[in-house]
Amino acid sequence: MKALVYRGPGKRELENKPKPSIENATDAIVKISKTTICGTDLHILKGDVPTVTPGRVLGHEGVGIIDQVGTNVSNFRVGDHVLISCITSCGKCSNCKKGMYSHCESGGGWILGNLIDGTQAEYVRIPFADNSLYPVPPGADEEALVMLSDILPTGFECGVVNGQIKPGDTVAIIGGGPIGLATLLTAQFYSPAEIIMVDIDDNRLEISKKLGATQTVNNSDGKAAEKVMALTSNKGVDVAIEAIGIPMSFDICQAIVTAGGHIASIGVHGKPVQLDLDKLWSQNITLTTGLVDTATTPMLMKTVMSGKIQPKDLITHYFQLEDIMAAYDAFSNAMEERALKVIISNPSCLA
Amino acid sequence: MKALVYRGPGKRELENKPKPSIENATDAIVKISKTTICGTDLHILKGDVPTVTPGRVLGHEGVGIIDQVGTNVSNFRVGDHVLISCITSCGKCSNCKKGMYSHCESGGGWILGNLIDGTQAEYVRIPFADNSLYPVPPGADEEALVMLSDILPTGFECGVVNGQIKPGDTVAIIGGGPIGLATLLTAQFYSPAEIIMVDIDDNRLEISKKLGATQTVNNSDGKAAEKVMALTSNKGVDVAIEAIGIPMSFDICQAIVTAGGHIASIGVHGKPVQLDLDKLWSQNITLTTGLVDTATTPMLMKTVMSGKIQPKDLITHYFQLEDIMAAYDAFSNAMEERALKVIISNPSCLA
Repeated sequence: MKALVYRGPGKRELENKPKPSIENATDAIVKISKTTICGTDLHILKGDVPTVTPGRVLGHEGVGIIDQVGTNVSNFRVGDHVLISCITSCGKCSNCKKGMYSHCESGGGWILGNLIDGTQAEYVRIPFADNSLYPVPPGADEEALVMLSDILPTGFECGVVNGQIKPGDTVAIIGGGPIGLATLLTAQFYSPAEIIMVDIDDNRLEISKKLGATQTVNNSDGKAAEKVMALTSNKGVDVAIEAIGIPMSFDICQAIVTAGGHIASIGVHGKPVQLDLDKLWSQNITLTTGLVDTATTPMLMKTVMSGKIQPKDLITHYFQLEDIMAAYDAFSNAMEERALKVIISNPSCLA
Repeated sequence: MKALVYRGPGKRELENKPKPSIENATDAIVKISKTTICGTDLHILKGDVPTVTPGRVLGHEGVGIIDQVGTNVSNFRVGDHVLISCITSCGKCSNCKKGMYSHCESGGGWILGNLIDGTQAEYVRIPFADNSLYPVPPGADEEALVMLSDILPTGFECGVVNGQIKPGDTVAIIGGGPIGLATLLTAQFYSPAEIIMVDIDDNRLEISKKLGATQTVNNSDGKAAEKVMALTSNKGVDVAIEAIGIPMSFDICQAIVTAGGHIASIGVHGKPVQLDLDKLWSQNITLTTGLVDTATTPMLMKTVMSGKIQPKDLITHYFQLEDIMAAYDAFSNAMEERALKVIISNPSCLA
């Protein structure tokens, strides 16, 4: 089968790999219908995620059709239409019992396209299928649902929920990429008074206005913090959401958070940051980090099915699986290509 | 009157100063009966708190007798026996209305012995007296109550509450000084399974065992993190509490916190720290900072009055106000002097 393979920092190839097979009784094999590329895949290619070793098939998002099931899979049958969660979870270890699926102690967590082969291929093996797949509701739009594998629950859980956004809050989102925009969409569930989007790309800022940002700040001059303070009459923001994964965006967050406020870190960070405890020790702030648990995926699926949010607005490009190298090129040059999410279809899957 | 005056980094003097007088209608003048020295005062003397300028009377803890009241003070009368809160608050700005008294927007917050003259003197002026003083209950032990001005609410609010200690948790407290021990006492309200105290002083570790620590770790060799990991079967702790205010103790916290755990920073930090987001971005941790609000002082007063906690166990030394320079010497050489809290009495006050 065709698969996009990581070959070490900066290197990726479209290769032929053997089709995966059932290894454990709780596995399912899913034939991929649609997948996508995540900012995390670019962090992997930068070398920020040392757990990913050369030879790994990348990808942790997708929708497809069940091709095989292990003998202990009871929620799904061959032919079922399913959403793949970026988080694999056994459902019965102590972390899973707390709903912290991201840290499943039975070998789950974020493993797809990281510790085991992922979804940017014709087929993928999904361990603990009963807990790691969701049925696609009849009439659902597959492309919209691909946004539920990762970016919507990540923006919602790691940004909105961890940041404890409340009605009337002033929120800043640093980074208007797919994760930042997914945060923007789901932040509006809680009716904040202001949502300030910060990016260096006017196109993304324009899109964020259409999707609900009340103010935008272009940080091309590196003065986002000063600009956000000016927009807030020097009060700062109740919730500052870091949606890039670099020290600069973290620094903006710690410069603009108000006393008693929250910093929600979503980004995949490859380096430590400086935390200004000499200024923040007395500021009653709460800082959260987190890998998504995808515990809210069923809830978010309802908001998508009801039309409450429109995640298809985040899709800008379409490719076939055989052109995935070009899809990476477009996603990597997001600013010039005006790219947000790219949909990669597998024409051999009749979903 | 006699007062302990800050004269720049490393310098303090016992001086004669004019007795304070009512400046605003909401002020009270309190004749100090008992006061103490805080670790924060040592941070000030180190130069960690740049808002404190030479000439300032230090101290933000104490018990005394109302000497004068402004015309708008209605909760207290001359002669009332009162506890002074380290936090001054108007009670009616937007932060006070949220209970975040530490960031009172009317010029309150932590101002005593910082922005205005403090309690290490015969008299002190208390702004917003109605909200910043508490009546001493009949039969209360003054010395125990001095622990309620700052260390008990600080350990409880910034350590226990912010750290979200729950029954069954494994907790580590880094720093067995008065704040760490106040955290230890109040952590037990919530029945954690294990409380590991970390310090470099065997005497403090011994005391912490008497006060409820289930394990102790001596960090003289700088290997506290490894030792805590070994004590927890390499799982780490649910709640890591930083109770010193230096990068080293913060580093221990980030090395030992388990996935989904909390780091509660209590210390007064004079420098930034390195936050290892490259390791922690995916660990679902919550980090809090905070100046105490003292919103829990009335509740904590009940726990002291009922004997549920015994804060007098933290008092090791007694001085008269005229000997406060010696009290500072003892408190600064805490390890050799085996000093925890020192009680400084003003013999001219007949409380």
